Amino acid sequence: MGNCCESASNFFGPQKNTNVRVSLPAVCFVWQIAMIVLFGVFIRYDEESDAHWVELKKTENLTDLQNEFYFRYPSFQDVHVMIFVGFGFLMTFLKRYSFSAVGFNFLIAAFGLQWALLMQGWFHHFDYSTGKIYIGIESLINADFCCAASLIAYGAILGKVSPVQLMVVTLFGVTLFAVEEYIILDLLHCRDSGGAMVIHCFGGYYGLAISWVLYRPNLHRSKRLNGSVYHSDLFAMIGTLFLWMFWPSFNSAIANHGDGQHRTAMNTYIALASSVLTTVALSSMSKKEGKLDMVHIQNATLAGGVAMGTAAEFMITPYGSLIVGFCIGIISTFGYLYVTPFLEKRLKLQDTCGIHNLHAVPGMLGGFIGAIVAATASESVYSKQGLIDTFGFTGKYENRSPGTQGGFQAAGVCVAMAFGLVGGAIVGFILKFPIWGDAADDYCFDDEAYWELPEEEETIPPVLEYNNHMTQHKHQET
Amino acid sequence: MGNCCESASNFFGPQKNTNVRVSLPAVCFVWQIAMIVLFGVFIRYDEESDAHWVELKKTENLTDLQNEFYFRYPSFQDVHVMIFVGFGFLMTFLKRYSFSAVGFNFLIAAFGLQWALLMQGWFHHFDYSTGKIYIGIESLINADFCCAASLIAYGAILGKVSPVQLMVVTLFGVTLFAVEEYIILDLLHCRDSGGAMVIHCFGGYYGLAISWVLYRPNLHRSKRLNGSVYHSDLFAMIGTLFLWMFWPSFNSAIANHGDGQHRTAMNTYIALASSVLTTVALSSMSKKEGKLDMVHIQNATLAGGVAMGTAAEFMITPYGSLIVGFCIGIISTFGYLYVTPFLEKRLKLQDTCGIHNLHAVPGMLGGFIGAIVAATASESVYSKQGLIDTFGFTGKYENRSPGTQGGFQAAGVCVAMAFGLVGGAIVGFILKFPIWGDAADDYCFDDEAYWELPEEEETIPPVLEYNNHMTQHKHQET
Amino acid sequence: MGNCCESASNFFGPQKNTNVRVSLPAVCFVWQIAMIVLFGVFIRYDEESDAHWVELKKTENLTDLQNEFYFRYPSFQDVHVMIFVGFGFLMTFLKRYSFSAVGFNFLIAAFGLQWALLMQGWFHHFDYSTGKIYIGIESLINADFCCAASLIAYGAILGKVSPVQLMVVTLFGVTLFAVEEYIILDLLHCRDSGGAMVIHCFGGYYGLAISWVLYRPNLHRSKRLNGSVYHSDLFAMIGTLFLWMFWPSFNSAIANHGDGQHRTAMNTYIALASSVLTTVALSSMSKKEGKLDMVHIQNATLAGGVAMGTAAEFMITPYGSLIVGFCIGIISTFGYLYVTPFLEKRLKLQDTCGIHNLHAVPGMLGGFIGAIVAATASESVYSKQGLIDTFGFTGKYENRSPGTQGGFQAAGVCVAMAFGLVGGAIVGFILKFPIWGDAADDYCFDDEAYWELPEEEETIPPVLEYNNHMTQHKHQET
Repeated sequence: MGNCCESASNFFGPQKNTNVRVSLPAVCFVWQIAMIVLFGVFIRYDEESDAHWVELKKTENLTDLQNEFYFRYPSFQDVHVMIFVGFGFLMTFLKRYSFSAVGFNFLIAAFGLQWALLMQGWFHHFDYSTGKIYIGIESLINADFCCAASLIAYGAILGKVSPVQLMVVTLFGVTLFAVEEYIILDLLHCRDSGGAMVIHCFGGYYGLAISWVLYRPNLHRSKRLNGSVYHSDLFAMIGTLFLWMFWPSFNSAIANHGDGQHRTAMNTYIALASSVLTTVALSSMSKKEGKLDMVHIQNATLAGGVAMGTAAEFMITPYGSLIVGFCIGIISTFGYLYVTPFLEKRLKLQDTCGIHNLHAVPGMLGGFIGAIVAATASESVYSKQGLIDTFGFTGKYENRSPGTQGGFQAAGVCVAMAFGLVGGAIVGFILKFPIWGDAADDYCFDDEAYWELPEEEETIPPVLEYNNHMTQHKHQET
Repeated sequence: MGNCCESASNFFGPQKNTNVRVSLPAVCFVWQIAMIVLFGVFIRYDEESDAHWVELKKTENLTDLQNEFYFRYPSFQDVHVMIFVGFGFLMTFLKRYSFSAVGFNFLIAAFGLQWALLMQGWFHHFDYSTGKIYIGIESLINADFCCAASLIAYGAILGKVSPVQLMVVTLFGVTLFAVEEYIILDLLHCRDSGGAMVIHCFGGYYGLAISWVLYRPNLHRSKRLNGSVYHSDLFAMIGTLFLWMFWPSFNSAIANHGDGQHRTAMNTYIALASSVLTTVALSSMSKKEGKLDMVHIQNATLAGGVAMGTAAEFMITPYGSLIVGFCIGIISTFGYLYVTPFLEKRLKLQDTCGIHNLHAVPGMLGGFIGAIVAATASESVYSKQGLIDTFGFTGKYENRSPGTQGGFQAAGVCVAMAFGLVGGAIVGFILKFPIWGDAADDYCFDDEAYWELPEEEETIPPVLEYNNHMTQHKHQET
Repeated sequence: MGNCCESASNFFGPQKNTNVRVSLPAVCFVWQIAMIVLFGVFIRYDEESDAHWVELKKTENLTDLQNEFYFRYPSFQDVHVMIFVGFGFLMTFLKRYSFSAVGFNFLIAAFGLQWALLMQGWFHHFDYSTGKIYIGIESLINADFCCAASLIAYGAILGKVSPVQLMVVTLFGVTLFAVEEYIILDLLHCRDSGGAMVIHCFGGYYGLAISWVLYRPNLHRSKRLNGSVYHSDLFAMIGTLFLWMFWPSFNSAIANHGDGQHRTAMNTYIALASSVLTTVALSSMSKKEGKLDMVHIQNATLAGGVAMGTAAEFMITPYGSLIVGFCIGIISTFGYLYVTPFLEKRLKLQDTCGIHNLHAVPGMLGGFIGAIVAATASESVYSKQGLIDTFGFTGKYENRSPGTQGGFQAAGVCVAMAFGLVGGAIVGFILKFPIWGDAADDYCFDDEAYWELPEEEETIPPVLEYNNHMTQHKHQET
C-alpha cells in the first residue's frame, strides 16, 4: 500500500497528512480536563438526585415515584440509543467508512454531552444565588438532544473530515445550539418538544453550511469508496430501525407529564408509519423495474418523526399526523432523488448522507407545521387548562393568544435556520485551515486514514499450510 | 447478468415479471390515502391522551403518574423493537434476501399497524354514541400485536412473494385477526395476554395455509440462495436476541396492572431460559460430532415465550414455567429437524422460516396449556379477588367457574386455528392470480428482483489504478 | 478439510476430540431437570407477583404503581439487553468465532440465571418458616447480574474452551458469586449497587485465574484466527454500544428508590462519557500515524461504567465522576497496550478479550474508589436521613460511621479478589481433565469445532450454470 500511495501522490500532487497523533490526543486531553474543571466549579446534583431528597420527600409528603427519574428515565434510555446506535449505525452504510461512522459518532457525542450539560446549564439552569448549575435526568436528555444537532451535521461531512475537525464542529455546534435554543424556547417562548426547529432544522443547515464551505471539487477521485456494500447497508438498517422505533420517545421525552407525553408519542408513531409507505411508493416509482433504493428506505422513512418534532405535542389529531407523514415521505424521497444531486452539481454542496432531505427540510417544515397547528389552537379542542399547559400561557405569557404563539413559532424556525447557516459558514472557514489532518480528495471515505484496519478475510490460510509456513519461518529465525 | 437471464428464460421457460413499478406505488398510495380518510372519520385521542385530561385530572383528583402511559410505555417500546428489529432481523438469515427481510417487514408492519388501529378500534373501542374510535397507548401495543400475526405469516412465504402480495397478506391478516380476536377475547371471554392463541397460533396457521396454496414444485431451482452465510446468520441473531430478551414485555404489555404484569414477565423470563437449554441439547444430539445448528438456536430458543403466551398471566408457578420451556424447546427443535422436511416432502408445504415449529405449534400448545392452567385455578391459589381480576369474572361472567373458563380457552384455540387455516387458504388463492409480480422459481430468495443492489465488495480497485483508469476515460470523453 | 485435518494431526500430534454430542446434551438435560426439581421444591412468587397482591393492595391501601415492578422493570430490561446482546456481541470480534461468542453467551446466561435464582435465593431470600424462596423483579435483575460475572470470565477463555467447560465455569461461577456476594453485602454490609466488587472484580479475577491454569503454550498455532475482520469488528461495536448506553441502568437497577437510582444513573453516564475521550486519546498516541485501535474503542470506553460500580450511588459529585472516567480510560487503554502482552509473555496468562483491563482492574479500583467516597461521607453532604438511607445505617449498623463503612468496603474488594483467584484456580484445574471436548491448540478460535457452518459466500454460482449442472446431475441420477 505504501508504494502505491507514494506513486499516487506523485501522480496527483502532494498527499495530505492525516496523522492526528498529536492533535487528536491533545484536543481530547485538554478539553476533557477543561470539562473536569468547569464541572467542578459549576455542576451540582439537583434536588431530586441529591441525597437530601429523602428529607425533602418527608417534608413535602412525596412518594418515591414522584421523583422525576420515573417520568423520564425510560424515554431517556430510548433517546440515548438513538444518539449512539441510531445515528452511529445509520452512517455505517459506506463500504469502508463504518469504523469512522460509528466510532467518531461515539467520540463526539461523548464529548458533546459534557459540553452541553455546561452550555445548556448556563442558559437554562444557572442559579445566580449560588453560581451553580443543578442537573437531573432532564438535563441528560437535553444534553443528548444537543449532541444530536452536531451528529446531524456530521452526516453532511461524513468521510471528508478528520476526527479533530469533528471535535471542533461539535464544540461550536453545541455552543450555537445552546444560544439558539435559549432564544427560541426562552425569549420567543416557543414549544418544540421534539426539536424540529432547535435540533433538526438547526443541525441540518449547520452541517450543510459547513459542507458548502468545505467543497471538494475533486471528490470524485474517492468515488470508488463513496457507496455501500450488501452488509454495510444492513448495518445501516440497524441504525434506521432504532431511530424509527424510538422516535416517539425522542419527541415525547421532555414533553409535559401525562397527556403531553402520551399524545406526543402517539402522534409521532402514526406519522412515522405513514411516511414509510409514501417513501416506498416513491422509491419504487423512481427506478426502472420498480426496484427499491436502500438509501430511501434508510433515511426518508424517518422524516415523519422529524416533521412532527414540534407539532406532535399539540392536538394535531391522528389523521393530521398521517397527513404530515404522507407528505414528508414524498418530499424527503424526492429530495434524495433530485435535490441532493442538484445541490451537488449547481450549488457545489456535497451532502454525504443527504441530511438536507432528512433533517434540514423536514425540520424546517416541521417548525412551520407546528406554527400552523399552534395558531389554530382553540379552547374547545384543548380545554382552558389544556391550552395553558400545552403552550405554557402562564406568567408573563398569560395573555398570549394561540395566533400570536403561531407567529412566534414561525419566527423560531427562522432563528434556527439563521444560526445554522451563519454558524456553519463560520465553522466551515475555521475548518479550512490546513492543520486539521483531513484526507486528500483521493482518500476520502476511507477508514484507512484514522484506523488500524484488520487484514482482509480472504487471507485466512488453511491451518496446515499456515503452520508449516510458520514453522519454517521459525526455523529460519533460529 | 442480463444475457444470463435471457438464456436462462430460454432454457426454463418464460421468466416471470417482477416489475412492481406500478402496482407497489399504487397500493401504497391508495391504501395510505384510505387510511387518512378513515382516520379522519373515525379516530380520535382517548381521554388520557387528549389535552382535556388536565381538567379530568383535577376533577377526579388524579396524579400525572396514573396516566396509562406510565404503566405501558416501557413495555410498548420493547414490543415495538420486537416487531421491527426482532422479526425483521430474524429473517435476514438468507444470504441474499436480507434487504427484503428487514425492508418488507418494515413496510408491512408500518401499513399493518394503521389498519389494525382501525379494525381493532371498530371491534373493541367503537363508541356508538359518537361514532368514533378513541385510541391511547394500549391501542398502539395492540396494533403492534396485530401486525405480529402477519409478520409471522411472512416467515412461511419468505423469499417467494412480492411486496405487493405481502401488502395483501397484511390487509387480510389484520382483518381476520381483528375478527378472531373479537370472538376469542370478547365473545368467548378468553384471557390471552401474550397472544399464544390470537397472535401465534392464528398467524402461524395463516402463513402455513398461504404457503401451502402457493406451493412451488420447482423451488429447488433457487436452492443455491436458500441458505445462510456466516454474517447473515449473525444478523439473524440480532433478531433472535431482541425477541428473546423482550418476550417478557410482549406477554406482559397488556396484562393487568400490578401483580399481573409482574408475574407475566417473570414466568416468561423463566420459561425462555429453560427452552434455550433443551434446544441446545437436541440440536447437538441431532448432528454427527454434536455440532450445533444456527437454525435451532435462532428459532427454537424462542418457543418458550410463545408457549407461555396465554398461561404466563396465570399462577402457573415458576417450576411450571420451567417445565413448559423444557418441553417446548424439545418439540420446536424436533420440528425443525423432522417435521418441516416432512411437511415439505409429503404435504407440499414449503415453510421458509419454519414458523410451524416456532409459532403454529407452540402457539396452539400454549393455548391449551393456558386452558389447563385456567381450569385448575382455585381460590386458595389466587385469592377470591385475584381469581376475579385474573380471569375477569365480573359482569355477566360473574358466575363462570375456572373449569368453564378452561373449556372456553380451549375453544379459543380452535377458533384461532380455524381462522388461520381457512383465511390463509382463501388469501393464498387470491395471491395465485398472475398479477402480483412474484418471482419465478429460479429467482426466489433473491433481493435482485426488488432492490437496487450495491456492487460487490470485491470490485474495489486500488486507488491508483482506478483513478488512472478514470483519467484515461475522461481524456477519451473530451 | 477432512484430509487437511488428518495430515495436520500427523504433523502436530493427535488432534483433540471436540465431539460434545454426548456431554453437552447430557449436561443440559440433567441440569435443566435439576432446576425444575429445585424450583418445584423452593421457588415461589413473592408478595408483589402473587395473585394475592390485589387483596394486599386493598388492605394496605396501595396503588398499582407501588408494585416494585414499575420501579425496576425498565432498568431490568436494559440490564437484560446488556447480558445477552451487550456481552454476546462484544465478543463477536474474532473473525471465525462469532457464533460461539454470541451462542455460548446465550447458553450459559440462560442456564446461569436459573441457578442464580436458586443460589441467591438461598442466601438472601430464604424464608425459614416456609422453607421457600420468594422471587420478584429484583431477583431477576440480581440473577442477570450474577450471570454477568461468569460471562466476564468467558471473555478471558474465549476461543479456548468447549461449551461443556463453559457450563462448568458458570455453575461454579454462580455458586462462588452467591457466597462472596453474601459475605460482602450481608456480612460486611457493603454497598455495591453496580457490582464493581461483586461482579466485575470477582468475575475478572475468576476468569483470569481459570485462563492462567489452562495456559496453552502453543496457542500461537491458532494465531491465524485470533484476530478480527472488518465486519466482525462492527458486530462487536453493537455489543460495546449497548453496554455503554445501558450502563447507567446496570449501576442503578437495584439502587435505592428515588434519588438513589437518579444519582447513580447520572454519575455513571458522566463517567462513561469521560472515559471515551481518554481512551481515544491514548489509543491515538500509541500508534504511529495516530491511528485508532478498535480493541481500545470496543473495550476501554466501558471502563468508566465498571469503575463507578460502587461509588455511583454515593455523592461522588459530577466532577468526581468525570475524574474517575478520565483516569480509568487511561488505565484501561494502557492495560490493553502493555499489560495484556506482558501478562501473556511473563505470567503465561492468555486473556482473549483483555478482561484484566476492562473488568478485573477497573472493578478492583472501583471498589476502592467506593471505599474512599464512603469513608469521606458526611452529614452535611448527605443529610442525616440521606446518610442512613445511602449506606443502610439501620438496625445493627445504626452506629457505624462512614469511616468504618469505608474500611468494610475496602475489605469487600479483597474478598471479591480472593474468591475470584482461588475459585478460578480450582475451577481451572477441574477443567484440565481431558474429558471436556476442548479444541487442540491448532483449532482454537474456530466455530468449526462446535457449529454447523454455512458454505462460503463466494460459492454462489450464477443461476444458469448452477441449474444446468443440477439438471445434468438429475439426469445422471435417473
